[in-house]
Amino acid sequence: MATPVKVYGPAASTAVSRVLACLLEKEVQFQLINVNMSKREHKSPEYLKIQPFGQVPAFQDDSISLFESRAICRYLCEKHGNRGNKNLYGTNPLVKASIDQWIEAEAQSFNQPSSALVFQLVFAPKFKIKQDEGVIKQNEEKLSKVLDVYEKRLEESRFLAGEEFTLADLSHLPNAQYLVHATDRARGLFTEKKNVWRWWGEISGRESWKKVVDMQNAPPA
Amino acid sequence: MATPVKVYGPAASTAVSRVLACLLEKEVQFQLINVNMSKREHKSPEYLKIQPFGQVPAFQDDSISLFESRAICRYLCEKHGNRGNKNLYGTNPLVKASIDQWIEAEAQSFNQPSSALVFQLVFAPKFKIKQDEGVIKQNEEKLSKVLDVYEKRLEESRFLAGEEFTLADLSHLPNAQYLVHATDRARGLFTEKKNVWRWWGEISGRESWKKVVDMQNAPPA
Ligand SMILES: N[C@@H](CCC(=O)N[C@@H](CS)C(=O)NCC(=O)O)C(=O)O
Ligand SMILES: N[C@@H](CCC(=O)N[C@@H](CS)C(=O)NCC(=O)O)C(=O)O
Repeated sequence: MATPVKVYGPAASTAVSRVLACLLEKEVQFQLINVNMSKREHKSPEYLKIQPFGQVPAFQDDSISLFESRAICRYLCEKHGNRGNKNLYGTNPLVKASIDQWIEAEAQSFNQPSSALVFQLVFAPKFKIKQDEGVIKQNEEKLSKVLDVYEKRLEESRFLAGEEFTLADLSHLPNAQYLVHATDRARGLFTEKKNVWRWWGEISGRESWKKVVDMQNAPPA
Repeated sequence: MATPVKVYGPAASTAVSRVLACLLEKEVQFQLINVNMSKREHKSPEYLKIQPFGQVPAFQDDSISLFESRAICRYLCEKHGNRGNKNLYGTNPLVKASIDQWIEAEAQSFNQPSSALVFQLVFAPKFKIKQDEGVIKQNEEKLSKVLDVYEKRLEESRFLAGEEFTLADLSHLPNAQYLVHATDRARGLFTEKKNVWRWWGEISGRESWKKVVDMQNAPPA
């Protein structure tokens, strides 16, 4: 067997868990190397050599060292085309273009308001940081508008890029998991939309994602 | 000859001009269809059918209708691998992964502060909207930190993803053009960094980009 690939960062990080979900879908063996963020290990000179922005995740295999979760996912799918879930990044150029389009929708439209809400509603209380009601309201409105577009799309097709679960759906799991399961307030944005809620049930029920959530909930080693 | 592809939106829009630069690099014939944003044509029911978020650009060819500028660029490179600039999206998986990584750096780290500065420093004065000094300062700091990472990278390699001009560099042209050429204030963020400034000269001097700038400066038809 090939040596396991390396992923740097805590599973609780949304960007790290995006990569973990992809590795599990592709059945690629990996080793998760913790980066202790409370000790600011992600800003150490050593770590900055592999992730110059000082963020998690970073990734290494025998051929390459990479950062940016969505770029790592794309690379894994290109490199391991014949392993695990073969539809994850499409099998023809038109499907692939549609997957890229919806990955970008996640990265450009969904990610910002949902990350802001995850911070305000989940991490701020946990780390005893004062919540900002104005920021919460503004991002609820933004996210709700994005989910209106998704609701319409998911009325026509089972998943975002078509009839198969792909990287485009997977990319939404990390932030949506926190919003749906760790907050009462943001959960409603998903439950109130019939097709979004059906889609969430389907994508979050995948074995790969359930394993990631287990890793997030495991007590620190 | 194949029918020209269609791009919807004004050339002055940064996201539209990203797609135009890609089309010119790939020597793909296109027709630019104006969307009058001051008349809110981008929010019309007709237009929302091809761009559900109500933004420009949208794209159509004989096979597909797409939105999201970076997804459109990726598609153009995949579809027209043998036309025009063949290195634009790499010719092997490792180079491609590096290109994707730096496209994501643009999309996730460079784009937000640079778009905010383009709005505050270029469009706000033009449309007589009050500038927000706090927002400007905050985004100058953010962008400067991103450019510090680029400076280091561009000390080691001629372009972001290696020794060739690629989609990763191209993706930066639209916002950087406004910051360097339409503002005195943000220009300094680029000139003060030796390698960034060398890189900017090289990428903005490409024939493809000069044509896009000419399109942006042309009087409305
Ligand atoms: N665009 C990056 C985002 C990475 C990111 O924001 N990581 C967060 C944790 S989820 C982080 O490292 N934050 C610490 C910091 O920015 O200093 C990716 O997708 O990999
Ligand atoms: N992520 C999109 C962004 C598109 C975008 O922000 N377009 C702007 C013009 S540069 C727009 O249409 N703004 C109008 C609006 O958002 O209502 C892309 O890259 O295509």
